[in-house]
Amino acid sequence: MSVAPSAVDLCRALVQCPSVTPQDGGSLSVLEAALKQAGFATHRVIFSEPGTPDIDNLYARIGSGAPFLVFAGHTDVVPVGEAAKWRFDPFAAEVAEGAVWGRGVADMKGAVAAFAAAACAFVAQHGTQKGSIGFLITGDEEGPAVNGTAKLLRWAYDRGQRFDHCILGEPTNPQALGDMIKIGRRGSLNGTLVAHGRQGHVGYPARANNPIPHLLRLLNGLIAAPLDQGTAHFEPSNLEIVSVDVGNPAWNVIPAEARARFNIRFNDSWTPETLQAELRAKLEAAGQGADYTLSFEPCNALAFLTEPDSFTDVVAGVVERKTGRKPVLSTSGGTSDARFIRAYCPVVEFGLVGATMHMVDERAAVADIEALTEIYAAILEAYFGY
Amino acid sequence: MSVAPSAVDLCRALVQCPSVTPQDGGSLSVLEAALKQAGFATHRVIFSEPGTPDIDNLYARIGSGAPFLVFAGHTDVVPVGEAAKWRFDPFAAEVAEGAVWGRGVADMKGAVAAFAAAACAFVAQHGTQKGSIGFLITGDEEGPAVNGTAKLLRWAYDRGQRFDHCILGEPTNPQALGDMIKIGRRGSLNGTLVAHGRQGHVGYPARANNPIPHLLRLLNGLIAAPLDQGTAHFEPSNLEIVSVDVGNPAWNVIPAEARARFNIRFNDSWTPETLQAELRAKLEAAGQGADYTLSFEPCNALAFLTEPDSFTDVVAGVVERKTGRKPVLSTSGGTSDARFIRAYCPVVEFGLVGATMHMVDERAAVADIEALTEIYAAILEAYFGY
Ligand SMILES: [Zn+2]
Ligand SMILES: [Zn+2]
Repeated sequence: MSVAPSAVDLCRALVQCPSVTPQDGGSLSVLEAALKQAGFATHRVIFSEPGTPDIDNLYARIGSGAPFLVFAGHTDVVPVGEAAKWRFDPFAAEVAEGAVWGRGVADMKGAVAAFAAAACAFVAQHGTQKGSIGFLITGDEEGPAVNGTAKLLRWAYDRGQRFDHCILGEPTNPQALGDMIKIGRRGSLNGTLVAHGRQGHVGYPARANNPIPHLLRLLNGLIAAPLDQGTAHFEPSNLEIVSVDVGNPAWNVIPAEARARFNIRFNDSWTPETLQAELRAKLEAAGQGADYTLSFEPCNALAFLTEPDSFTDVVAGVVERKTGRKPVLSTSGGTSDARFIRAYCPVVEFGLVGATMHMVDERAAVADIEALTEIYAAILEAYFGY
Repeated sequence: MSVAPSAVDLCRALVQCPSVTPQDGGSLSVLEAALKQAGFATHRVIFSEPGTPDIDNLYARIGSGAPFLVFAGHTDVVPVGEAAKWRFDPFAAEVAEGAVWGRGVADMKGAVAAFAAAACAFVAQHGTQKGSIGFLITGDEEGPAVNGTAKLLRWAYDRGQRFDHCILGEPTNPQALGDMIKIGRRGSLNGTLVAHGRQGHVGYPARANNPIPHLLRLLNGLIAAPLDQGTAHFEPSNLEIVSVDVGNPAWNVIPAEARARFNIRFNDSWTPETLQAELRAKLEAAGQGADYTLSFEPCNALAFLTEPDSFTDVVAGVVERKTGRKPVLSTSGGTSDARFIRAYCPVVEFGLVGATMHMVDERAAVADIEALTEIYAAILEAYFGY
């Protein structure tokens, strides 16, 4: 049997691969080699789509029976931002002050390494007679997310792969390991509201129809009252107007059109369809006869909830036992690839501390990476009944 | 003595000079030649300013005594727009269906030609023993208006020229000759309102501060109530929001800043200073602690009124007698070079019908050009006591 890799060593090796989306930087090969060494069957799959870069993905499995627990994650990272402001080279994976420093350590190469180390050690000790362990790893989570997890899930399903449960390694903890497990995510809907008027000269307003006051009134109608009060596991849905644009360079011209774009993070009391109907009703009430157009981007992030059950109990119980903290079962924050996974099997998210993710000087405590490895190992033991 | 030119011939000759701002196209020379022929002393003056094109201007005077009646106007024109949609070449000055067709006929080469023809005929008949007649003609009215009438007035003043009254030949009549004389203009003030917030991710609105709802509330505070109810000779002041711009390309980012630009056409109940103070008070009341910045462009268009008196009586009386219509004494519409002239002498505006100005197929009836010439001639006779 092989010797399981150290999570911290594997994490550092992954961070040293500069894998800013859509570059892979060699990161999937580093992971693949470790899993192969432990006996996993591995598959590299490249997905393409017009208008987006080709993306490399990794699927791995060991064992052939059920239950099948799959770990999902990504090795791509966001850009380093202001490189000069970093304390260390963001791809050097320096160890200093008890932490590994570098882009992607927290989000989420540290968790990928921790689960790989835990799984390799588990397999070395117990074998696979009680079920299967898998990996769904993409290089397209921080980018358009078109050639990544969504397609990899479908690819695996089409090849007979049936997952029973999934752990996604996003950095779910706001401040300290053990803070938070995510058992669902809000949905996300993007909309555009255009108010139409009639262009004219500011000196003759009666001959024109300024669309801007109409747009102000309509937008006020959208934001005046909350969409809901929240549900058992979800915060209230929230609408943010992200841009308003007229683009009129002149001072003396009343424009013909004014547009606003908004995003809604919605909870499980809505589907995209019921939400769109609600917005249309709000605009109708606020419109006072205004001429406007409301349209929506295709919605690929429905609200979903993994109802607390024995699987979430396993994860939450291990986290509490190992960290001494009772994790909140949360549905807050942005979207993640869990929105795709939930169509295939129940999914919970637990990873490192996200406080420095996407920021300059992203880092994770060495102790946290090691503790997360122990947590994942204990989840595997509990899940497979050891 | 010379023979006075025909107004229609002179108008057509001017229209045939393609004088789209800042081009002169030879138009000032056509006018200058006609005035010289009639005995006017003429001066061509080129004004310059960094960042704007050099502009040619024409000053002319005949007579040395008071009273001094000066005609002000411009020979530059706006672009032809969609050239293919014109019925005739916009610089051919075709005569068809009883009208002269071409860019600038109505705004305002027809009026320049009419006053020149009237003045030349007047001088030929009466000489200049009862006063002086002058011309202030610029090629920068439709453009930035920086190297035009404002500087020409100053140039003339510095050379001892003292005007008693001015007629500006803008096309003041909405539908028919005799509709309207303008005895003042509203002022114009441009302002920019910027709401400041804190950028963040739409998934974590509590960590951000979206400036857009603040801007909506502030703008509502500006437009909720009218600025005033109008005054004896002025319509109510009017605020138009001309643009709102955030420029955020993302759907998942709450922006840091949102800005709006507005223009106010204000009447003689305001100075720029009192108006700015009023806007600040409205924003303070609507702001609810919002962080915002309000700024203004330099204001070069104050509201002004030429109080109805014997001069406006002369003009209005002649117009009514010659057209059979009682002209409205109005202060409506956009700004004009009268905003500069009013600092030197009382000014009234009367010219052709503006219905087609700045549009495709701009034109003026031959009968209107001839009638306007008669009106200007009768004003000269009445003004100088013939
Ligand atoms: Zn991530
Ligand atoms: Zn004009």
